[in-house]
Amino acid sequence: MQEIAGAIQEGASAYLNRQYTTIAMVGVVIFALAAWQLSWLAAIGFAIGAILSGAAGYIGMLVSVRANVRTTQAASVSLAAGLSVAFKSGAVTGMLVAGLALLSVAVYYSVLTVHLGFDPSSRDVVDALVALGFGASLISIFARLGGGIFTKGADVGGDLVGKVEAGIPEDDPRNPATIADNVGDNVGDCAGMAADLFETYAVTVVATMVLASIFFVGAGAGDMMVYPLAIGGTCIITSIIGTFFVRLGSSQNIMGALYKGFVASAVLSLVALYFMTDHLLGLDTAFETSTGNFTGMDLYICGIAGLVITGLIIWITEYYTGVNFRPVRSIAKASETGHGTNVIQGLAVSMEATALPALVIVVGIIVTYSLAGLFGIAIAVTTMLALAGMVVALDAFGPVTDNAGGIAEMAELPEDVRNTTDALDAVGNTTKAVTKGYAIGSAGLGALVLFAAYTQDLTFFTASPELYPYFAGVEANFSLSNPYVVVGLFVGGLLPYLFGAMGMMAVGRAGGAIVEEVRRQFREKPGIMQGTEKPDYKAAVDLLTKAAIKEMVVPSLLPVLSPIVLYFIVLQIADKSAAFSALGAMLLGVIVTGLFVALSMTAGGGAWDNAKKYIEDGNHGGKGSDAHKAAVTGDTVGDPYKDTAGPAVNPMIKITNIVALLLLAILAHS
Amino acid sequence: MQEIAGAIQEGASAYLNRQYTTIAMVGVVIFALAAWQLSWLAAIGFAIGAILSGAAGYIGMLVSVRANVRTTQAASVSLAAGLSVAFKSGAVTGMLVAGLALLSVAVYYSVLTVHLGFDPSSRDVVDALVALGFGASLISIFARLGGGIFTKGADVGGDLVGKVEAGIPEDDPRNPATIADNVGDNVGDCAGMAADLFETYAVTVVATMVLASIFFVGAGAGDMMVYPLAIGGTCIITSIIGTFFVRLGSSQNIMGALYKGFVASAVLSLVALYFMTDHLLGLDTAFETSTGNFTGMDLYICGIAGLVITGLIIWITEYYTGVNFRPVRSIAKASETGHGTNVIQGLAVSMEATALPALVIVVGIIVTYSLAGLFGIAIAVTTMLALAGMVVALDAFGPVTDNAGGIAEMAELPEDVRNTTDALDAVGNTTKAVTKGYAIGSAGLGALVLFAAYTQDLTFFTASPELYPYFAGVEANFSLSNPYVVVGLFVGGLLPYLFGAMGMMAVGRAGGAIVEEVRRQFREKPGIMQGTEKPDYKAAVDLLTKAAIKEMVVPSLLPVLSPIVLYFIVLQIADKSAAFSALGAMLLGVIVTGLFVALSMTAGGGAWDNAKKYIEDGNHGGKGSDAHKAAVTGDTVGDPYKDTAGPAVNPMIKITNIVALLLLAILAHS
Repeated sequence: MQEIAGAIQEGASAYLNRQYTTIAMVGVVIFALAAWQLSWLAAIGFAIGAILSGAAGYIGMLVSVRANVRTTQAASVSLAAGLSVAFKSGAVTGMLVAGLALLSVAVYYSVLTVHLGFDPSSRDVVDALVALGFGASLISIFARLGGGIFTKGADVGGDLVGKVEAGIPEDDPRNPATIADNVGDNVGDCAGMAADLFETYAVTVVATMVLASIFFVGAGAGDMMVYPLAIGGTCIITSIIGTFFVRLGSSQNIMGALYKGFVASAVLSLVALYFMTDHLLGLDTAFETSTGNFTGMDLYICGIAGLVITGLIIWITEYYTGVNFRPVRSIAKASETGHGTNVIQGLAVSMEATALPALVIVVGIIVTYSLAGLFGIAIAVTTMLALAGMVVALDAFGPVTDNAGGIAEMAELPEDVRNTTDALDAVGNTTKAVTKGYAIGSAGLGALVLFAAYTQDLTFFTASPELYPYFAGVEANFSLSNPYVVVGLFVGGLLPYLFGAMGMMAVGRAGGAIVEEVRRQFREKPGIMQGTEKPDYKAAVDLLTKAAIKEMVVPSLLPVLSPIVLYFIVLQIADKSAAFSALGAMLLGVIVTGLFVALSMTAGGGAWDNAKKYIEDGNHGGKGSDAHKAAVTGDTVGDPYKDTAGPAVNPMIKITNIVALLLLAILAHS
Repeated sequence: MQEIAGAIQEGASAYLNRQYTTIAMVGVVIFALAAWQLSWLAAIGFAIGAILSGAAGYIGMLVSVRANVRTTQAASVSLAAGLSVAFKSGAVTGMLVAGLALLSVAVYYSVLTVHLGFDPSSRDVVDALVALGFGASLISIFARLGGGIFTKGADVGGDLVGKVEAGIPEDDPRNPATIADNVGDNVGDCAGMAADLFETYAVTVVATMVLASIFFVGAGAGDMMVYPLAIGGTCIITSIIGTFFVRLGSSQNIMGALYKGFVASAVLSLVALYFMTDHLLGLDTAFETSTGNFTGMDLYICGIAGLVITGLIIWITEYYTGVNFRPVRSIAKASETGHGTNVIQGLAVSMEATALPALVIVVGIIVTYSLAGLFGIAIAVTTMLALAGMVVALDAFGPVTDNAGGIAEMAELPEDVRNTTDALDAVGNTTKAVTKGYAIGSAGLGALVLFAAYTQDLTFFTASPELYPYFAGVEANFSLSNPYVVVGLFVGGLLPYLFGAMGMMAVGRAGGAIVEEVRRQFREKPGIMQGTEKPDYKAAVDLLTKAAIKEMVVPSLLPVLSPIVLYFIVLQIADKSAAFSALGAMLLGVIVTGLFVALSMTAGGGAWDNAKKYIEDGNHGGKGSDAHKAAVTGDTVGDPYKDTAGPAVNPMIKITNIVALLLLAILAHS
């Protein structure tokens, strides 16, 4: 077991080191650009966001590659012990992600305002915070995509050649791709996910603070800018308390144990936020903004709305990806008639799964906007994300148990250990899907906040042409009757499609390369299948490392460059007003299609995965049946959907938005 | 051969009779509603649109079920003879679709204005024409979806159980689903497509006329309303002349022969439209509208832009679905590593294929809007669709040759006949994909015209609250900063996803039922596989008829009811202004995601189909290899994509828009 775990640790560290080296090269260029075009403070903000986002991912990986073997060990004692080790390691990562994100924003903000004495609502502070968000997003998209290509390349390739062709079970030590698969779980599902949620958290808090700085210029801005930070701080404490509620009851229901922790955190947050809001803002204090007047109480209710949205999205995701409900069972049933019908049904489920979350977001927008205008929406998303520590804890639990199962299988431990880790793994599948639905749902709302920040920023600059001469005479018109708005919506709308296509193709290529590699090893070392020869695990890991690093760069730069290119092309054709209108519409276009692309991919992938698990549990013919083979195909298709392209759309949406904000800042400087 | 063709004719007629009986029941209800809530003229307009759209589909089917066996006969003489019969039958359908659509609008318009003496720009005329468009759209969505479910249920089910399980070739007479498959080609690809393009044509002309009536109130409206009709008339004549240019050269290049006809029509149109515009409007005459001033020459250039957009979309579609280019070959290559990688690559290609058409549409919007405002966009789409006769001729050629091949196979004609029909069929695949890209591209632009009609109509009503008291005080705000606009975009955006999911699930169910049925027949009649017993073809046809009729109703009503439901829900929560804003944004939301969903589905499906054909031509192992099996899976997944859900999104987008226009008219009456 130690030997296997060591190989996984080594592979994961080697991959992340190379990934971060590559990202660092891009990062240095952007750091220089930020320092040159904006300010040193912005460049430093960018570096803070980038480095801490990378650190969150790295530490997440370090925790999980150490927890996996301990979970296997604990699982050989009892289910409760296995759960305890796996969840605690997830909780460490979760609190770390949320804590680091909150600290990075809070500390830099206080350095800027308290130590350096900048006015909280000054452009220097806003630019520096936005740059921090950009740093976090940029690293996150690389980590999500690179890790996703690595992990799914291994998974797709390994499953195809192992389960389907050679007829050996998942994680069989004879399959040369197994170690790579386990490395992938750590660099994709752990490191990638941690960087992603760090980014989502940091960007949302920053966007809310930027909105506050614009809405409450002057004396009130400080308190309002601190409010999102206070929400984050409060909920980290309640999340930590919540983790103690995760305990396996007498029913041995793992999912129930995890939900106990989540519900405890949510209820505690509900209470704590009430007193915090009253203390910081006063529940009866009235506030005025250009998009609505409200009291502290209204903001508190917006926070509750955020918690309710989180709960509903978790519930809907579980319906669409859990083995006990119609969608997954319909895919399992469709597998009986072959590969084609499995995939058709899975695609249909993935598309259907977008409807309810979209409606929840729509209702959330209406409710929070009626209560407190745009700032109400911002507070709802902030509160939604404030529980990120707890949600990441549930998610990071997944890859740890997945790895633990793999190690048990490879170390040829007794059957009952593998059964324990399998039970934990199945739950991990659901919690992983839930987290992604949550991240994307929050991105949908969060992106609206970013779009609001863009329009408000633009209004701010155009209102003072004497200070910002570039904006003299600009009259952005965001009406849908403006054809440049339609142009922006279409161009923004195509980005998630193009980005998704690139991610899927990269996985297909990486997976195909693994298939060839495994076939080569089986051919050249016939002893592998007899168990007399050891496969060359390292060759597969190296192959994927190179492939993932190479493939992640171009798609990651797509959302960085697109806003800039669109702006300058429309500027050439028409004028500044048209260009700013098209750019704004692009931000919404990327949210509108991105939300649906991402939701459908993550839900569909989870459903395919669990349909396979449902069949493996003995339904529709069980393991080895034709239905099972069809379900494996579906699972393979779902892999890049749910773990590469789908979740990477989340940082992609936000990068597009943040780049637009930075472009405004740079033009204002010029 | 006669016997087989007879069975196909019988099955197709039986299906369409039942389909139209069901649709007629819905139609009678809506006719009564239109007469009650709007006017008799509107109800009659609805009836004209509905009946002629149905007739176009029916006649298209009648022509093709008679042409198929003649094509088989002619193909046994020579390739040129087969091409000639197949194309001529397609041309009859094409000219009929375009001619009927144009005549229905033109005759009803002249009855209203000349015989009944209504002012061309009066609300009575506008309402009646919009109702005509609604009738055409409603029938078309039923026909597309019902026919699509029938044909792809047969195709998916038949392929899965025949090619993959039983290992018999496509169209093998031992497969009980073959006749149903051939019936499906006629009711789906022929009747459904004819109704769809009838609808696209009629709705676009109507929308352009409505825009003209609003922009040019008073004396000039008449001429401007006649202009789109004149474009249609001109291009039907040039299309008919163009058909004579379709001739097989010495190179025996079928696609080349067809393109000769298309290019001839386009060039002739270019010349004819110049003189027609000069004669009707005057190239130097200046016009003024609220969204731009222009001359007759500018409108003519917009028309050229429409022709160029058509050409570019055809070219891009061929790139993504033709066997000679990277996308299809990459799918074929990915098939080597299994079912999963084939599907992943196919999905990736389908997503990538949306980017270039979207950019073409974007450039088209910018160019035509700068030339002549919103009316310029409308004229470009009208001209684009004016070539529908020629495009349908190319498309209707597909199912005829597909059927001809099936008949040759079932009648066990000599190998070389089958080779001739196969060559024709492969070209038919590409032309089918091209037509769908064209229809959806035009729908993307056409829907913008409909959205413009909505906003202009709304402005018209709110400007005269004394005439339309319901609209007193309404101030619609279509700015993206209005949260109700965002709500509308999201709700509109989810419709194509939900609709697509329903269509795919319906095909999955129908296909699964066919698999069970064929397995039952193989089990109960073991003689079928030895060729000593005849399969029960009729059972499969009956099963699909019932399934398709049952499954088409609910999804078809989704776009009819959604705009009404959204309007009244937002009205309850907020006020009329918010409700009209949300409704307008919904129309754009449905276009933004609908365009990408439809483009990806039709291109992806075509690419999967031709990747299979490419392998069958002897690449990557050829027929019977593992790569071929994987490619068959991909083709199966692509079937409902390209022939059910994808093309049905086209009428769906437009129904949503037209229902919104009708809702405005009804509210104005109240």
